[in-house]
Amino acid sequence: MTDTAQRLLSSATAAFAAKGFHGTTTRDIASGAGVTPGAVYVHHKSKEDLLYCISKVGHEKTLDLVRASAGSSKDDSPVDRMAALVRNLVEWQAVNHTSSRVVNFELPALSDEHLAEVLQMRHQVEDEFRSIVDDGLKQGVFNVPDANMAVVTLLSLCIDVARWYRGDGRLSAAEIGEHHSLMALRLLGVDNL
Amino acid sequence: MTDTAQRLLSSATAAFAAKGFHGTTTRDIASGAGVTPGAVYVHHKSKEDLLYCISKVGHEKTLDLVRASAGSSKDDSPVDRMAALVRNLVEWQAVNHTSSRVVNFELPALSDEHLAEVLQMRHQVEDEFRSIVDDGLKQGVFNVPDANMAVVTLLSLCIDVARWYRGDGRLSAAEIGEHHSLMALRLLGVDNL
Repeated sequence: MTDTAQRLLSSATAAFAAKGFHGTTTRDIASGAGVTPGAVYVHHKSKEDLLYCISKVGHEKTLDLVRASAGSSKDDSPVDRMAALVRNLVEWQAVNHTSSRVVNFELPALSDEHLAEVLQMRHQVEDEFRSIVDDGLKQGVFNVPDANMAVVTLLSLCIDVARWYRGDGRLSAAEIGEHHSLMALRLLGVDNL
Repeated sequence: MTDTAQRLLSSATAAFAAKGFHGTTTRDIASGAGVTPGAVYVHHKSKEDLLYCISKVGHEKTLDLVRASAGSSKDDSPVDRMAALVRNLVEWQAVNHTSSRVVNFELPALSDEHLAEVLQMRHQVEDEFRSIVDDGLKQGVFNVPDANMAVVTLLSLCIDVARWYRGDGRLSAAEIGEHHSLMALRLLGVDNL
C-alpha cells in the first residue's frame, strides 16, 4: 500500500470514529491525509468504499486474532482457550479503540453487498466462541442456561469495550483484557474463580 | 405534547436509529411525521434540538427505571436489588431498542452543553449500580477484583443489548432480562447460581 493510500485510511478511520460515517465529508478525509479532495477518488471510488476497506481489514485482523487465540492450543482446556480468546480480543479492541469503534458501530452505513461480506466474518468470529462454549459444556467445565445467549453475552463484553474505552483510564488495555477474561469464565459458570 | 410534536419525535427517533444523526435530514424527519420541513422548525430550532429532546427523555426514563428498580426495596439484599435492576433495565432496553440505540450511540452528535447534561444523568445511573455493588461487597455477598470495573462490565451487559437486539430472535425481551440478571450475579461472584 502506498503512503498516500495508508494516510487516507488512517484519516478516514479517525474521522468516522469521531463524527460517524455520515457526518464525515470527503473533504475532511482529504484534509486529514494532507491531499486534495480529488486525490481521494484516485484511490477509492466513494466514501463508502473507504469504510468498506477499513471494515474489511478490521474484521480480517479480528478473525485472525480470534482464530489464533482460540485455536493455538486445541489440546488446552476450553477454560484456557476462552480465557486467551477474551483476553486477546479485549486487549486488541482497547488498543485499537478508534478503528474498533468504526468496525463495530458503522456497519449500517455499508452497502448491502459489503455488509453481507462483513457479517459473514462476524459469524465466523461467533463460531469460534460457540465452538469453545460447546467443548466446555461437553467436558462439563462450563455450565450455562443457554449456549447461544452465552455467546451473545461474551461478545457484548468484548465489543462494548470499543464504545467506552478511551485509553485515559486507570487500567491498561492488557489489564482490562485480564479482568474481562476472568469475567468471561464467571459467566460460563467455571468454578473456583 | 401535541400530536404533531409527538409524531416528530417518533419520526426523528426512527430515522436517527436507522441512518444515524448525521445521515438523517430534516426532510426525512418531516416526511416520516407527515408534515412539511418548515413545520419541524415550529417545534425545534435545529435537528440537534430534536436529538437532545429524545436523549433527555430517554435518559430521564432510564434513570427513573433504574432508581425504582434499585431502590424499591432498600431492605432487600444487594443480590435481589441487582437482579431486579439488570432484569428491568435490559428488558426496557430491548423493548425500546430503537430509541435505546439513539440514546446510547448518538451521544457524540449532541452539542457540548447538551452532552454535559446527559452525561450527568449517565453518571447517576452508574452511581445506582455502584451503590449496590458497594453494599454487596460490604455484606460479603459479592466478590469482585475491582468494583469500578465490575460496574463498567455490568453496564456493558445492559447497554450492548441496544446494539444487537432487534425483536426477531428466539427469546423475548423479558427472557433476555432474566438471563442477563443471572449473568450479572455471576459476574459479581454470587455463589450457588
